Amino acid sequence: MRLAPNGPLLDEAGPDSDVVLSSRVRLARNLAGFPFVNKATVAQRHQVIGLVQRVGLESTLGTGTVWVNLMHATSKERQLLVERHLISRQLAEGDTPRAVAISPDERISVMINEEDHLRLQVLLPGQQLEDALSRANSVDDAVETKLDVSFSRRWGYLTACPTNVGCGIRLSVMLHLPALRMTGEIERVRRAAKELHLAVRGFYGEGSDSTGDLYQVSNQVTLGVSENDLLEQFCQRIVPRLIDYERQARRLLEQSPTTLDDRLHRAMGVLRSARLMGIDEAMKLLSRIRLGACLGRLPDVDLRTVRRLLLQAQPAHLQLAMGSELGEDQLREARATMIREALT
Amino acid sequence: MRLAPNGPLLDEAGPDSDVVLSSRVRLARNLAGFPFVNKATVAQRHQVIGLVQRVGLESTLGTGTVWVNLMHATSKERQLLVERHLISRQLAEGDTPRAVAISPDERISVMINEEDHLRLQVLLPGQQLEDALSRANSVDDAVETKLDVSFSRRWGYLTACPTNVGCGIRLSVMLHLPALRMTGEIERVRRAAKELHLAVRGFYGEGSDSTGDLYQVSNQVTLGVSENDLLEQFCQRIVPRLIDYERQARRLLEQSPTTLDDRLHRAMGVLRSARLMGIDEAMKLLSRIRLGACLGRLPDVDLRTVRRLLLQAQPAHLQLAMGSELGEDQLREARATMIREALT
Repeated sequence: MRLAPNGPLLDEAGPDSDVVLSSRVRLARNLAGFPFVNKATVAQRHQVIGLVQRVGLESTLGTGTVWVNLMHATSKERQLLVERHLISRQLAEGDTPRAVAISPDERISVMINEEDHLRLQVLLPGQQLEDALSRANSVDDAVETKLDVSFSRRWGYLTACPTNVGCGIRLSVMLHLPALRMTGEIERVRRAAKELHLAVRGFYGEGSDSTGDLYQVSNQVTLGVSENDLLEQFCQRIVPRLIDYERQARRLLEQSPTTLDDRLHRAMGVLRSARLMGIDEAMKLLSRIRLGACLGRLPDVDLRTVRRLLLQAQPAHLQLAMGSELGEDQLREARATMIREALT
Repeated sequence: MRLAPNGPLLDEAGPDSDVVLSSRVRLARNLAGFPFVNKATVAQRHQVIGLVQRVGLESTLGTGTVWVNLMHATSKERQLLVERHLISRQLAEGDTPRAVAISPDERISVMINEEDHLRLQVLLPGQQLEDALSRANSVDDAVETKLDVSFSRRWGYLTACPTNVGCGIRLSVMLHLPALRMTGEIERVRRAAKELHLAVRGFYGEGSDSTGDLYQVSNQVTLGVSENDLLEQFCQRIVPRLIDYERQARRLLEQSPTTLDDRLHRAMGVLRSARLMGIDEAMKLLSRIRLGACLGRLPDVDLRTVRRLLLQAQPAHLQLAMGSELGEDQLREARATMIREALT
């Protein structure tokens, strides 16, 4: 598998990209006449995959759409797809018939037999939730003209987990919140988010830590909420406020410029010097220099290089780049070398 | 007060200087007919100073010998003398008539009214204990031809603390033991040293920590030990063994070159990047790059620069270099700037 040269995770051109790395929309859909995935037989799961494959998703996702049968993919390939945020950990780790279709630009992916029969995902750089939702709806339309989808006039789309019932839309943004972390405000933001029924997760979604000060914020409940309400609340109110909090915290940090520069330059110094580096430290330090670059305080740091390193420092990407199976120590050495050379 | 351009603490040319930064000999002497310092009246202490000043130490210490009356010195001047290892903390912090005579090359100092009436000190770069002792004896001869010193045929020189009775000689070496610290062997060495009746102290002697992996090792007891026995045991056996231990530990570290280089280059990276730096961190990191330079693994690090920084990063030296009274934060900033500029 090759990395799209300008995939959504490598693109720094999106709106509000100083804080919002990417926007993601996932629609949960299930096929009528089939039990939910966790109740379906292996044969029924195969049937679901077959039905979706015959929909002709290529006409929406684009020529060159890649189909990956996850039962045949190696663990490294599956990890690579997780690192690119093209599939969820759950889909990667399952042991049942499951697949994913990926658009050539890696902005759209359709997971089959994750928690629901279908999870339609659109991932765009920066804050582009509205655009992502409209693209997700196009994919959904293409699917629904060909397949009979479980829908109740009373409840809306029916999903395996009750929280997704209704419009079945999960909106999420990957936020870079280093200043809120440094000022210690992040916990207050987390609590406020909880009260607003938002999920705040780490870089890899549910159960993952906030590596590199990257937080995935998403709505949790869709039952009884219309698409428009959701868009208005999440896109017009919540996300702008989070962006504003982080920018305020950055301005606060800039009031103690020497303390801030000390942290930024130390991060750069270590990234340019280390001979061994684990993924957690790499993410933490890359996050710092990304902040420095956004604030114009590390003028020789290119934001796109940092973005690329955040992705390529991940274990599966690194293994792939090295071309051979590396042990833990070799991986740490390869990561340090790659980062050092990219930043020097 | 000006720093001697090639004082013993700045000289990297001494024998075994990869491990031994400096050698020091201190002789404890007391004037007959006077109570020990802690029992003497203020008037008697003044008398002792007056008597020593009339000895004509300049003929031994050299033209340009500096006399410092510590009652009149500012706290910064006193701290400066401690940082240069020309006086003890005890002499700096006392509140009684006391003084010090310092040779122009800063290799010899004579403290008056420290624990004993006289403490004659010779400080030389590298392992030069024999030479330091012979110079100390010359100063002692000059003193004893002019002054009546307390000496007992049975016990030898009489001193305020019983451990110094006898030859009254304290030999010590300032050792740089980063590898023993990194390999965790330092505690074993400390225990062995204790069994050999050695004192192992930090950079500033009694009560100080081993900042920057610098350890001051000295004999503790002189009662019943002749000068020759002491020299033989300490210089011929103990110090060479300690040097050997450290060198073995360095070779051990070099068997994992990437891990070692990671530590060395990270230290260099932080020293070259930080905008704020406390003295403890500065000492720790400078110690690391000194190790790197000694092993030839940081080819662009000049050992003499590191030696100079180890001294000039100290608070009083830094204050003096900056020319103004700096607060704690300004001091940390000035230290980081000085180090960064010296190493870049």
